[in-house]
Amino acid sequence: MVKKGKVSSAVIRRLPRYYRTLEALHRDGAVRISSSALGKRMGITASQIRQDLSCFGEFGQQGYGYNVADLRREISEILGMDQDHSAVLIGAGNLGKALIRNFSFGKNGFALSAAFDADPAAIGREFNGVTVRAVDELDEYLRSHKVNVGVLTLPRSAAQDMAEHLIAGGVQGIWNFTNAELDVGDSGVFVENVHFSDSLLTLSYYISDAGQKAEGE
Amino acid sequence: MVKKGKVSSAVIRRLPRYYRTLEALHRDGAVRISSSALGKRMGITASQIRQDLSCFGEFGQQGYGYNVADLRREISEILGMDQDHSAVLIGAGNLGKALIRNFSFGKNGFALSAAFDADPAAIGREFNGVTVRAVDELDEYLRSHKVNVGVLTLPRSAAQDMAEHLIAGGVQGIWNFTNAELDVGDSGVFVENVHFSDSLLTLSYYISDAGQKAEGE
Repeated sequence: MVKKGKVSSAVIRRLPRYYRTLEALHRDGAVRISSSALGKRMGITASQIRQDLSCFGEFGQQGYGYNVADLRREISEILGMDQDHSAVLIGAGNLGKALIRNFSFGKNGFALSAAFDADPAAIGREFNGVTVRAVDELDEYLRSHKVNVGVLTLPRSAAQDMAEHLIAGGVQGIWNFTNAELDVGDSGVFVENVHFSDSLLTLSYYISDAGQKAEGE
Repeated sequence: MVKKGKVSSAVIRRLPRYYRTLEALHRDGAVRISSSALGKRMGITASQIRQDLSCFGEFGQQGYGYNVADLRREISEILGMDQDHSAVLIGAGNLGKALIRNFSFGKNGFALSAAFDADPAAIGREFNGVTVRAVDELDEYLRSHKVNVGVLTLPRSAAQDMAEHLIAGGVQGIWNFTNAELDVGDSGVFVENVHFSDSLLTLSYYISDAGQKAEGE
């Protein structure tokens, strides 16, 4: 039904923003929206939106715009949110606990089924219904459960080793919060890195820019 | 010296990646690199790189490529990393503590000078040299210290209120980890949102895509 495979990563990275925007519109009771209104809300042009969506099929109608609920559902399907993905988290320190407690895996189509840690003081504790297990049990867990994604929230020094356990255990993706560059060999496992630095540096650029402009006035 | 202001946000969002890549090359002892080799490493074309960098001036030499150390330094300056920005963090829960303890503000040109929390149990505790203060002291702190950025790692429900305190206190930017959509009015304050969901959904897309391809084989 949907065309995939040749879609640029820039388009793919915009899809979650489309979803987020449509979700907010849907929540606010919007029934339909024109590509120009959607573009305005997202800070991109209407033609960019039409071009992005054309990668995945036919959406919207000339003169009518998009049905918000339909487009939201279609994008959620393109993103695989209906596929009941499962995840395990490795490293139940502050960041790991923050994700377990406060991040809604469920809203993104994921079930967080287990967490692992090397620290005996952490093992056996439960957060938000997820019990922390000994990291030694990871291999056995991966053998006996279907796990799509491993979340790495452990110290950088242990990241590559744990990535290899995850890959050997058959995961399809790694959500990497460490700033280690993971080597996944020819496994085909997809690594999504969360780079806090990139985000802070973008902010840094804009406030520096603003500062320079103000000085120039 | 550098042209700014009309640069597209897509280019700006690539700058931290340029910096990160050049930093790694520099660390590995690379002295110069061609635009095609840099592009290969970053997964973009050489002409994209030349086009991106042309927004900020003249870099590199025909037939020589880029001097790694120079380009790294110039990009760090464009990003404002040399401007001694200061930040305060609001919300010393798990995520806040994870940032205070493990995120290197210093490497990104920021000094994290204080943290605030509403929970009496958190106040007075020290993490990585940063003492947690009562959130009631925020306004006074902002009056008596130069603070460029406020980091919001507090519950979503308190995000807008605290953003208003930060804006009234004169910050230039807010690094927002809550998934609240902040209203900054006409303050000109720049908000950089960290959307964990967008990252996980991108990963979701790729593993779904891979799954579909595998099923089609």
